Amino acid sequence: MTPGRPVMPGADKVRRTLTDQGSESPSSAPAGEAPAPRTGSEVAAYGATSAQSGLVPLTIERRALKPDDVEIDIEFCGLCHSDVHATRGEWGERPWPLVPGHEIVGRVRRVGDEVRSFSVDDRVGVGCMVDSCGECENCLDGVEQFCDRGNVLTYGSADPRNGGEATQGGYAQRIVVTEKFVLRVPETLDPAAAAPLLCAGITTYSPLRYFGVEPGERVGVVGLGGLGHLAVKLAKAMGAEVTVFTRSAEKGDAARELGADDVVVTSDPTALEAARRTLDLVIDTVAAPHDVNAYLRTLRLDGALFQLSLPSGTMAPVDPGLLIRRRLSYAGSLIGGIAETQEMLEFCAEHGVAADIELVAADELNEAYDRMVAGDVKYRFVLDATTLASTGAGSAQAEEGEE
Amino acid sequence: MTPGRPVMPGADKVRRTLTDQGSESPSSAPAGEAPAPRTGSEVAAYGATSAQSGLVPLTIERRALKPDDVEIDIEFCGLCHSDVHATRGEWGERPWPLVPGHEIVGRVRRVGDEVRSFSVDDRVGVGCMVDSCGECENCLDGVEQFCDRGNVLTYGSADPRNGGEATQGGYAQRIVVTEKFVLRVPETLDPAAAAPLLCAGITTYSPLRYFGVEPGERVGVVGLGGLGHLAVKLAKAMGAEVTVFTRSAEKGDAARELGADDVVVTSDPTALEAARRTLDLVIDTVAAPHDVNAYLRTLRLDGALFQLSLPSGTMAPVDPGLLIRRRLSYAGSLIGGIAETQEMLEFCAEHGVAADIELVAADELNEAYDRMVAGDVKYRFVLDATTLASTGAGSAQAEEGEE
Repeated sequence: MTPGRPVMPGADKVRRTLTDQGSESPSSAPAGEAPAPRTGSEVAAYGATSAQSGLVPLTIERRALKPDDVEIDIEFCGLCHSDVHATRGEWGERPWPLVPGHEIVGRVRRVGDEVRSFSVDDRVGVGCMVDSCGECENCLDGVEQFCDRGNVLTYGSADPRNGGEATQGGYAQRIVVTEKFVLRVPETLDPAAAAPLLCAGITTYSPLRYFGVEPGERVGVVGLGGLGHLAVKLAKAMGAEVTVFTRSAEKGDAARELGADDVVVTSDPTALEAARRTLDLVIDTVAAPHDVNAYLRTLRLDGALFQLSLPSGTMAPVDPGLLIRRRLSYAGSLIGGIAETQEMLEFCAEHGVAADIELVAADELNEAYDRMVAGDVKYRFVLDATTLASTGAGSAQAEEGEE
Repeated sequence: MTPGRPVMPGADKVRRTLTDQGSESPSSAPAGEAPAPRTGSEVAAYGATSAQSGLVPLTIERRALKPDDVEIDIEFCGLCHSDVHATRGEWGERPWPLVPGHEIVGRVRRVGDEVRSFSVDDRVGVGCMVDSCGECENCLDGVEQFCDRGNVLTYGSADPRNGGEATQGGYAQRIVVTEKFVLRVPETLDPAAAAPLLCAGITTYSPLRYFGVEPGERVGVVGLGGLGHLAVKLAKAMGAEVTVFTRSAEKGDAARELGADDVVVTSDPTALEAARRTLDLVIDTVAAPHDVNAYLRTLRLDGALFQLSLPSGTMAPVDPGLLIRRRLSYAGSLIGGIAETQEMLEFCAEHGVAADIELVAADELNEAYDRMVAGDVKYRFVLDATTLASTGAGSAQAEEGEE
């Protein structure tokens, strides 16, 4: 899950007109054939037309390929809590319609003339970003997630490559992305289970690497959802001993099945007390406002707690005495750069790490959202994008408005 | 300034009886002569007999030299805010009487039979700690300030080397300390101005080193008191560009005199806004509860804010979005280990860094405390310990009670 950021300047200029007529655009070539289009193509998608609409079938336009663009036939797209927040307007007003999805896996359908890194039929992925300025210090350092000018998010960002139109995400049949932001997904990974690696995976991998987890070090994971379950698997694959903090003993059993060495049921004060000063690093995936002091107390000297999710409410104050007396850090981390995301995918292929998923069809998306909010998923829903064409998507058509 | 920590178990067993009769103990040999005593010696000191007493003349007993002990004739002792808090009972109940002071510089008067590192007349110092377990992982790693079993603070800690009696600090004529916790003070440093290095200096030096400040990096310093003014000098000596945050324009001029390259007057929102994302590290020396978010906003990617002082009240909640969007750390740091303190003293000698001080006599201590609380000192008071003998110290005599 990634924290919300405001859409880029210019997004408010984007206007779209929705009609409930029309069908899949004739300019959208059938999958399998690959004439390079000079104009954009319309594809079936699912998205929200307002904060109250829920997800409905849509037709959206993908831009014409630029010389460095890759067009991808989407096979799978993970469902991230960010998608729920964004489509329900919980992170502020958005340009509508909004097609969410930033855990995208598919195969290359077409490439622009100058694309050298990818060929048709390559298995590829797209994560939370589809572009950045490429010129600022952070972009040059390969941490495009911190682009000084604001990167282009996979959905809901104004896209300078497309006349400032808002980007549309992965709950769609296809997507067009500049090759710099396309990841190579190893063929040995199950593509559906690999999809959540593009956001949940890199979001947890990056702080583990940034901290520099070494074999034998002890990592705590707070929260056992989409992020948390991947944090457990990744930390284990790095050789760490993993402790999961959870509120219920039942989730503890699930944590052990994922490979956790230890479970602390946080409703038990003696269990929390017993965990004092035992961990080197805590990965905190909880999105609701909470008190991190209980987890800071579990850290040893020079330990760090990384918070990965941005709560909508105010957090409890941090006790600076905890930081001072153990030289601790309370830190944050935001997805990862493109090079690090590629490294993560290869690490996952090497160590057999992927998400535990439940596949859903397009017409099950709204139900899946409700279950996500209720915490009723082990551990990530993934949309089977082949179901988009058959569920009525395309019955609404988006037409480009004035810019 | 160091945060308060509870006195070690056993301190409550210590009882002292104060009388207002007697004079300096006859067992206390005159300074300059050095017969190795087999019993403890009584020395003039200044300390508190209750949270309400203020500082009064006292006679305290220093333990007989053990083979690895060094007895030091104290020349100077810095006045730290911790001393005020401790003697006024603001950090909880203490064993009384309490002689504060942990910024001690003097000359070796006597050494135990097994002492090899120091000789009579060496210029030496003692900081916030006088002992630690020596066996835990942290002690073995040279970070005795984080001793797992609790180190022995220079005052107010139960001292296993002395039958569990509470340690007494540096507002005294002499002190006896195991050689492992004695620092060598370079002769090129002015001894009075060097005294504050033993706490304020190492407290600011350590996070600068831990963060790894490099020449050309940009360091912010919040608060321009005893710690802050040394943070400015040390960061400058490390080659950093230094920005001082202060509430008043007048303090800004003082900061520039100390070497600060830039000053941000925090009462001016536009000045704070202009400082956004400009710094690599912020050293926050403010002891009152405050909002660190304003300073977190001044940090660039991968920046860190180190809080060094433990406020008595609750701090404002930290905005985790700031941490996440710049991969920042909100961190703490606690003095420094003995080896690092020695390194700091040598760094200061090499770079001509010492505190700006105002010397006070023993009978001016209470007034100096009031001025410290009012912020009326540039930047550290230092007790001239030669004034202890002539101000009536010794008119109260401490006798060892049962243990």
